[in-house]
Amino acid sequence: MKIRVGILGGTGYVGIELVRLLCRHKSVEITRIVSQSFVGKRVSEVYPNLAGVCDVVCSTLDIDDIAKNCDVVFTALPHGASKELIPALFGKSLKIIDMSGDYRYDDKAVYEKWYGEAHTSPELLERSVYGLCEVHRNKIACAELVGNPGCYTTCSILALAPAVAAGIIDNQSIIIDAKSGVTGAGRSTALDFSFCECAESAKAYKIATHRHTSEIEQELSNFAKEEIQLSFTPHLIPMKRGILATCYANLKSSISVDDVHKIYAEFYKNEYFVRVYDVGMLPEVKNVAGSNFTDIGIAVDTRLNRLVAVSCIDNLIKGAAGQAVQNMNIMFGIEERVGLDIPGMYL
Amino acid sequence: MKIRVGILGGTGYVGIELVRLLCRHKSVEITRIVSQSFVGKRVSEVYPNLAGVCDVVCSTLDIDDIAKNCDVVFTALPHGASKELIPALFGKSLKIIDMSGDYRYDDKAVYEKWYGEAHTSPELLERSVYGLCEVHRNKIACAELVGNPGCYTTCSILALAPAVAAGIIDNQSIIIDAKSGVTGAGRSTALDFSFCECAESAKAYKIATHRHTSEIEQELSNFAKEEIQLSFTPHLIPMKRGILATCYANLKSSISVDDVHKIYAEFYKNEYFVRVYDVGMLPEVKNVAGSNFTDIGIAVDTRLNRLVAVSCIDNLIKGAAGQAVQNMNIMFGIEERVGLDIPGMYL
Amino acid sequence: MKIRVGILGGTGYVGIELVRLLCRHKSVEITRIVSQSFVGKRVSEVYPNLAGVCDVVCSTLDIDDIAKNCDVVFTALPHGASKELIPALFGKSLKIIDMSGDYRYDDKAVYEKWYGEAHTSPELLERSVYGLCEVHRNKIACAELVGNPGCYTTCSILALAPAVAAGIIDNQSIIIDAKSGVTGAGRSTALDFSFCECAESAKAYKIATHRHTSEIEQELSNFAKEEIQLSFTPHLIPMKRGILATCYANLKSSISVDDVHKIYAEFYKNEYFVRVYDVGMLPEVKNVAGSNFTDIGIAVDTRLNRLVAVSCIDNLIKGAAGQAVQNMNIMFGIEERVGLDIPGMYL
Amino acid sequence: MKIRVGILGGTGYVGIELVRLLCRHKSVEITRIVSQSFVGKRVSEVYPNLAGVCDVVCSTLDIDDIAKNCDVVFTALPHGASKELIPALFGKSLKIIDMSGDYRYDDKAVYEKWYGEAHTSPELLERSVYGLCEVHRNKIACAELVGNPGCYTTCSILALAPAVAAGIIDNQSIIIDAKSGVTGAGRSTALDFSFCECAESAKAYKIATHRHTSEIEQELSNFAKEEIQLSFTPHLIPMKRGILATCYANLKSSISVDDVHKIYAEFYKNEYFVRVYDVGMLPEVKNVAGSNFTDIGIAVDTRLNRLVAVSCIDNLIKGAAGQAVQNMNIMFGIEERVGLDIPGMYL
Repeated sequence: MKIRVGILGGTGYVGIELVRLLCRHKSVEITRIVSQSFVGKRVSEVYPNLAGVCDVVCSTLDIDDIAKNCDVVFTALPHGASKELIPALFGKSLKIIDMSGDYRYDDKAVYEKWYGEAHTSPELLERSVYGLCEVHRNKIACAELVGNPGCYTTCSILALAPAVAAGIIDNQSIIIDAKSGVTGAGRSTALDFSFCECAESAKAYKIATHRHTSEIEQELSNFAKEEIQLSFTPHLIPMKRGILATCYANLKSSISVDDVHKIYAEFYKNEYFVRVYDVGMLPEVKNVAGSNFTDIGIAVDTRLNRLVAVSCIDNLIKGAAGQAVQNMNIMFGIEERVGLDIPGMYL
Repeated sequence: MKIRVGILGGTGYVGIELVRLLCRHKSVEITRIVSQSFVGKRVSEVYPNLAGVCDVVCSTLDIDDIAKNCDVVFTALPHGASKELIPALFGKSLKIIDMSGDYRYDDKAVYEKWYGEAHTSPELLERSVYGLCEVHRNKIACAELVGNPGCYTTCSILALAPAVAAGIIDNQSIIIDAKSGVTGAGRSTALDFSFCECAESAKAYKIATHRHTSEIEQELSNFAKEEIQLSFTPHLIPMKRGILATCYANLKSSISVDDVHKIYAEFYKNEYFVRVYDVGMLPEVKNVAGSNFTDIGIAVDTRLNRLVAVSCIDNLIKGAAGQAVQNMNIMFGIEERVGLDIPGMYL
Repeated sequence: MKIRVGILGGTGYVGIELVRLLCRHKSVEITRIVSQSFVGKRVSEVYPNLAGVCDVVCSTLDIDDIAKNCDVVFTALPHGASKELIPALFGKSLKIIDMSGDYRYDDKAVYEKWYGEAHTSPELLERSVYGLCEVHRNKIACAELVGNPGCYTTCSILALAPAVAAGIIDNQSIIIDAKSGVTGAGRSTALDFSFCECAESAKAYKIATHRHTSEIEQELSNFAKEEIQLSFTPHLIPMKRGILATCYANLKSSISVDDVHKIYAEFYKNEYFVRVYDVGMLPEVKNVAGSNFTDIGIAVDTRLNRLVAVSCIDNLIKGAAGQAVQNMNIMFGIEERVGLDIPGMYL
Repeated sequence: MKIRVGILGGTGYVGIELVRLLCRHKSVEITRIVSQSFVGKRVSEVYPNLAGVCDVVCSTLDIDDIAKNCDVVFTALPHGASKELIPALFGKSLKIIDMSGDYRYDDKAVYEKWYGEAHTSPELLERSVYGLCEVHRNKIACAELVGNPGCYTTCSILALAPAVAAGIIDNQSIIIDAKSGVTGAGRSTALDFSFCECAESAKAYKIATHRHTSEIEQELSNFAKEEIQLSFTPHLIPMKRGILATCYANLKSSISVDDVHKIYAEFYKNEYFVRVYDVGMLPEVKNVAGSNFTDIGIAVDTRLNRLVAVSCIDNLIKGAAGQAVQNMNIMFGIEERVGLDIPGMYL
């Protein structure tokens, strides 16, 4: 018996990446793709790359139909739509993996501060689990509702968690400088994301105000067992997929790069999808693009006693659809790698 | 029992794409990766995208060792090297799939004319089969030695074969204008292929002299049952993967685009990896990049009574490593799609 | 006394390229930039590259104001808008250079066929001059209204004119396969031109139906003194600026590449902005991007007795704003190179 | 009388950018282009973008010939070559602008530490002036030998100088995260800079060890009147031209972004080539690419009391050839903008 999967918002960029990954997952059958813009069209008419591979017809939203025909739904909806919709799905004996920011927070107040609006289903927020697989695997296994992490978030937390957990850095000195490909903006027609505006350029945006800051702070604070505030600066650079996060923090005391490396290697020793590079090697986006891996490289600036950890992911996979599949695998007791066995493209 | 695979020249771009595809092929075990440049290194040290996925150590070339430990070898060597090496491998009860131009020709004289050098193993050339799967499947199934087609070649032949076979075009009027991504040049350090020289530019090269012309002519002539000569112009455009071939030919008599479409659809009706687009739709590289598909769109210029067929492939996959895997599957009686089930990336 | 210049539609991509070129033209003062979308804003607020260089405030359209304060206007408006507006400007003792297709045709019927709508100012169409500088210089010098050529058009006509004029090719065998950068689509928010949809991809579009076909046919027919119909296929490739046109035609009789080269070199011997490459060399977009040059390379396929002429331009400069400035220089008796003295970027 | 200019190393990327800028400088005549690799060839054979614009023939190095025929030489040589060559040129009544790191330091020991070799002409190092125009204009005006700043250096120092000079930041908390286009690597055939290795990827490199760190520290220390040590991390991103530097520093006391902006605006109020953006606006590479401008945007993270200053330049122009021309203008008493009047490309 295959897991029957529904994808809500299946023709956005995250939605279609879910389709692309799930259509070759051996334990899954995609039964519903909901897309208000393309009702009645085959998903492969909208995305011809899928022709002959997944030709499911897009349908309109029908909660009962979803509940009857799906064991799990992925909600890949514009921000804010999730928290309106999910209460209707919750408790209908299906599992929910939400791609929005709506169910990622331990504290409703943090959500409301950073998203600037009231949370309309706080009782579900309490029951949701933050879906960063490597950190919350056990809770995810039992969850009915998972808030799938943000892309910048995943990349940044995994880069810093070992150092914070080990207590080797000054937690108030963290600066994360992250560079993202343009798919991070989703299927957008905004001029800002046109080829002519993005190619051969680069920029920082939303300095000190990007919402993912709060997610990173929440999770690193949990590791630190104290409240952490940090700088997070997102940048747009001219590539399609990928995030590279360069993370800076002052070391509390003098510690060699080899010793920091040991801490990282130990922290992730059982994690297939996190690769800690040997000292002297640094990650590159092309090594993870197309895959679910997170690659991490470590350097120590001995002059300044400062740690620099560099991490990268494919924002659409480990930063969204791939981690969602990994979460589904955990929730259904399937081996985590299933459907995610593709190495990075490199070329 | 898995098929034991050896890859000779495993750290070039075609070689590594073979590794990337084969490391997740369920019926395959990669037993040898030969790379003179990286003997003793894990392939994943050279290509960190493979870390944790394929960590085979590169070895030096040892014919006996290969023969003992491989059921099939892929030779992804610089041009000319194949025809020196393969005679030593042939007849050692392993199958050989050669990625070079050395075993693609029916007629030694054509090879020698276009490659400008004598063929040193013409007796093997006679026994080799041209590995264009959709065209020579039956012969491939029984072959010991397959000459895997060129990238431009695959894309161009598949675009024109139905029209030539149906006899609807003036065979001497064919013009193929092909645009390739930069991976087509392989793992090259030539300045011409540096980022700064390629990005934001485009150029034609080797007009009227590119070797793939002769391969295309050979195969289309077979379909036409007459000798075809044609224009083929390769171009370099700023993308990594992909070929788009725009093929022109005068129609012998007035025929509607719908009728041409029927001829194409019928020709490829049993071919999973060839997708003929509905009339009015045209293929785009992003739909095939990352996959083994060939996408074909058809237009008829009714003013001029001229056919325009546009095709595209991923040059590293259907144009090289993917087709080689498809050939292996055919040679070993495995379902052709195995290991090639990934849809195009689109993003 | 400087020439007072107005730009209508000054915040589109062609408009802003006009501003960029004209703001450093020593004989010009930009007095008006009309942009309905940005009335009251400095043009440098919309395009910060111009800050400190050109800070003209965008105004709304006021015909009398334009007439009083401009010696020449460039109309860079969406298609169709020009022919509604220009009759009101015409005859007000200013010169007009229109960037749209509305005033490019000798024959109203051709316009109406390819643009699918009636021409509402045919009397002006008759008085307008087709602004391909190298071909119509003398007429342009006396014109009040110039229809500035299309981008594909300029590149294609200049590539074929010498061969057509010399009568060496079969005029009915012409095929033009053109590749354009994305700025050709203008300042568009259509999803098709977003970074994620264009990068790492390529496609043909509007096969046999692109409007520029008719412009090319008009001009080459003039050279041929017979009606020419030809194939023109535009493609979109992932770069910002530039067009590369690969042009095929059967040679009437056997003629060496050196003799063809002589015809081309002679044809353009007095043209600063057309560079005919030595035999064996082929043009590349990077050599012309950022400049007003047209580069042309010639090859002859002796097997097939076919000419292949490759040309390239910067679509925003020689294909639009640069040629418009060149036209202005001609119309005002200024040396043609003024304001256009920048070599291609190469990097 | 024009200034007679010689360019040594004229066919590297910085050399050719010098040619491209200088060939249209109204007060300059290029009399010598020295290029060992292309002796006897026109520079426009190597860089066809220059055909018809600059066709100077490359010559071999001849000190006496240079001295006789040049009023100024630009030395754009591989690192280390400058300090061997320049002593022979110095004192020959010509001015020298050196593009290498060899004459940028106040303290020989700093050079020797970061470059790992002895300085063989320390007496010239003492007489050289650091050519950051906006900072050392007066000294440059009288200099015989100018050490033209590095690309990362220019971008970083200009971003931080006002804050350091005003004493508003903790000087030991500075972190500079810089992203560079690939031309920064020069005309390199290294595989690392091939299109296939760079496109669709990004990486950090030389963390805590890049030589430009020491230049930045030297200059900012001068402003601070205390020794500053800082973190500098270079990144390679997939574009040709441009550097974006995101600079972090803790504010000593609470200060509003408007007050910081006033400090920056005041600091650069007389500088044509430095544009301080209004609060709320951030610079983008496309606004400066192709120009000599440095654009700077300012943000204050009030939660953390941290300054984030973002700056960008065209690495080949303000980061190399353009600043060198600006230095020449200063040295010869010409208006600084001459030859540098081109706005950024934007497109």
